[in-house]
Amino acid sequence: MSADVARIIAMDTYDVRFPTSRQLDGSDAMNPDPDYSAAYVVLRTDAGEGLDGHGFTFTIGRGNDVQVAAIEALRGHVVGRPVAEVCADPGSLSRALTGDSQLRWLGPEKGVMHMAVGAVVNAAWDLAARQARKPLWKLLADAEPAWLVSQIDFRYLTDALTEQEALDLLRHARTGREAREEELHRGGYPAYTTSPGWLGYPDEKLARLAEEAMTAGFRQIKLKVGADLEDDIRRCRTAREVVGPGFRMAIDANQRWDVPEAIAWISRLAEFGPYWIEEPTSPDDVLGHAAIRRAVAPVKVATGEHVHNRVVFKQLLQADAIDVLQLDAARVGGVNENLAILLLAAKFGVPVCPHAGGVGLCELVQHLSMFDFVAVSGTTEDRVIEYVDHLHEHFRDPVVIRDGHYAAPLTPGFSAAMSPESIAAYTYPHGRFWAADLARRGDGQGATDPAEVQA
Amino acid sequence: MSADVARIIAMDTYDVRFPTSRQLDGSDAMNPDPDYSAAYVVLRTDAGEGLDGHGFTFTIGRGNDVQVAAIEALRGHVVGRPVAEVCADPGSLSRALTGDSQLRWLGPEKGVMHMAVGAVVNAAWDLAARQARKPLWKLLADAEPAWLVSQIDFRYLTDALTEQEALDLLRHARTGREAREEELHRGGYPAYTTSPGWLGYPDEKLARLAEEAMTAGFRQIKLKVGADLEDDIRRCRTAREVVGPGFRMAIDANQRWDVPEAIAWISRLAEFGPYWIEEPTSPDDVLGHAAIRRAVAPVKVATGEHVHNRVVFKQLLQADAIDVLQLDAARVGGVNENLAILLLAAKFGVPVCPHAGGVGLCELVQHLSMFDFVAVSGTTEDRVIEYVDHLHEHFRDPVVIRDGHYAAPLTPGFSAAMSPESIAAYTYPHGRFWAADLARRGDGQGATDPAEVQA
Repeated sequence: MSADVARIIAMDTYDVRFPTSRQLDGSDAMNPDPDYSAAYVVLRTDAGEGLDGHGFTFTIGRGNDVQVAAIEALRGHVVGRPVAEVCADPGSLSRALTGDSQLRWLGPEKGVMHMAVGAVVNAAWDLAARQARKPLWKLLADAEPAWLVSQIDFRYLTDALTEQEALDLLRHARTGREAREEELHRGGYPAYTTSPGWLGYPDEKLARLAEEAMTAGFRQIKLKVGADLEDDIRRCRTAREVVGPGFRMAIDANQRWDVPEAIAWISRLAEFGPYWIEEPTSPDDVLGHAAIRRAVAPVKVATGEHVHNRVVFKQLLQADAIDVLQLDAARVGGVNENLAILLLAAKFGVPVCPHAGGVGLCELVQHLSMFDFVAVSGTTEDRVIEYVDHLHEHFRDPVVIRDGHYAAPLTPGFSAAMSPESIAAYTYPHGRFWAADLARRGDGQGATDPAEVQA
Repeated sequence: MSADVARIIAMDTYDVRFPTSRQLDGSDAMNPDPDYSAAYVVLRTDAGEGLDGHGFTFTIGRGNDVQVAAIEALRGHVVGRPVAEVCADPGSLSRALTGDSQLRWLGPEKGVMHMAVGAVVNAAWDLAARQARKPLWKLLADAEPAWLVSQIDFRYLTDALTEQEALDLLRHARTGREAREEELHRGGYPAYTTSPGWLGYPDEKLARLAEEAMTAGFRQIKLKVGADLEDDIRRCRTAREVVGPGFRMAIDANQRWDVPEAIAWISRLAEFGPYWIEEPTSPDDVLGHAAIRRAVAPVKVATGEHVHNRVVFKQLLQADAIDVLQLDAARVGGVNENLAILLLAAKFGVPVCPHAGGVGLCELVQHLSMFDFVAVSGTTEDRVIEYVDHLHEHFRDPVVIRDGHYAAPLTPGFSAAMSPESIAAYTYPHGRFWAADLARRGDGQGATDPAEVQA
């Protein structure tokens, strides 16, 4: 069937879970035992040549089924839609999904339902980029400013960013685009790594991984803190001794503290020169972040991975509450809302350093940061994308890191597609890994070592 | 089995939906066609005498199944728990549910997952009140201040309200409790009504219902606004002419506006003397509400039905963003979080006028306001509970309105239990009403008139 009459003919969903809790990978002060998971969605079309779109919500285990149920609730807005319309105007789908008045009640624009919207919207952008035979960052960077602006829902934003201001920002950034694109192809986009600093790791592993991170060319490392102050002091000292005085070392409390506690705790760690404190308190607490920022400067304040929509990011910027904006590709309503967030950050002059890790978040966010560099902020100064070396082997187009930089992806799409083998093995509870694991537990043999069941 | 070894032996869930969209009941500027629904949960015990606990999340139709799935995801924390422990310390269950680190990722403390927690926590309080053979408001009003404080999670609150301050507030409010309880039994708690003002109603129906509301003794009416300015001017004029100059008339935009638009629109309606403007913009926009409040005074600003947790309420109070706090019984994490919200409001001296209507929200919030009157704020001045005359017939202990006041409930529990007949008829899609409706549609006979299938 030719593409101009082709439609989305099916929306397939998968509850994919990886047993990461068994190695303490990803452990932090709030999340001691995450099983990194994806509520995964595929938009299938009858356009031929296997044209489809992939997206997902990242979760950390239990509740991944609830997230799948939320994606399923969107089916009626998706199946039957013409492929050409979705690709020419992903915003039409985005508006239909966030605007469903009955589903909106379950948010609005937050939590399970909004993340489900994000998964489907991101799958639509994956589809659009595949159809255009471009990586998503390039599709966005090549787009006309007026079209990009048409993709954004400005509702609740106009007191901070109008459509005209967004248009002006994008037009202004057209200067020098080609040179920045060449620079991106040549050198990639700078990264930092969280791999050394998980809370469950012993000190010698922390020291070794910090050393390796420097050698590998990363611009910055990050340590999880917030569970025990004396441990944090020891771990920060260990890491600082390894990386030396000039190297950027961020710390991340994963929302562990109240405002007064955050200020006191960070002050105790200040001697180790943390570059930023990430998620010091509730992601909903705009005024709390502002108070902490005033108190702990020059330590910078960063947040965003749990900020649920553009309205909260708007306020974090209006209130001078953050130095670093950490957007997440799969927490908000997908690419369309992240366009708004990138433009808000550009308007307020705050650098965007995306949250990544988890399942496939590195694969997604690289596109947003690269688009930002080429066509929005026009710079990588003080900007880094988080990198965690987990689970990339399950993706068809995994990120490529060279000398501490993300290499610009060249494959068409949003790098969102998992390999069919991984989906088959890790679908919960009937995939090969989980079926074997549950059978072993039933036989009293204990949990399965994931290495035994690699796809 | 005796109560001290009894356990919660089952958690039953139901997807209950009422076809309210067919009469335009409940229509407003953001929600044109709600089907008022409840994701309903029953905690069954083996304590004998039919002791069980009922709770629910209110939704407006599609997505009620997602909400049920989220409640189901909590089952492991609930079933098997000793009844005596749950009743003596509902906070232990509340902390287990909000603290599940994997499920927390889906919020944190917001949206579908947090509302599911609220449904189960409220069911536990219904159970506790039934076991104590007291209506919930009385159970709370009789409780020791130290125990009430132990039921609250102060995380993220201590910059605005400490445990000690909460304790002092509750101790202070013990003076005069008995007299206020007598007053409550005598005169009830004042109510206002939204029934006249739904956006889909013609002007003559608005005028007639406004007249009836005054005659019935309500203290205030409320009109939905925000879809069309000229319509709003005409409807506000009509209502004001009916109720006269001294009567309180609130308006409600259901999040329809951006900040500048809200200020302009409200200014055009100011001549009709609106008492408060409710939900002028996004419920997430603390700073936006503060800006609107500064601009539209003396019109008061009210919000809360979509405020997703105590952290956002805290900031609305810290930022002087609201004149009226509209808590909702089933949006946040249940009674425990609402205790925190009532105490925050008392600390900041802001009156609480709960959101109600929907399915069973009037039944729930009356208990919170009555407890507040007897044992927290100690006053009903400038305080009213919303009342909407929908769907009460489906509840076993429906609210009783006398002379525009909620009569104090006397039956043990949280008034949360629906009649088994209503659950059976309106469970979607296999209950009697929906099975018949779907069959008629299949036969081309169109939708069923709900009156034909009353339970």
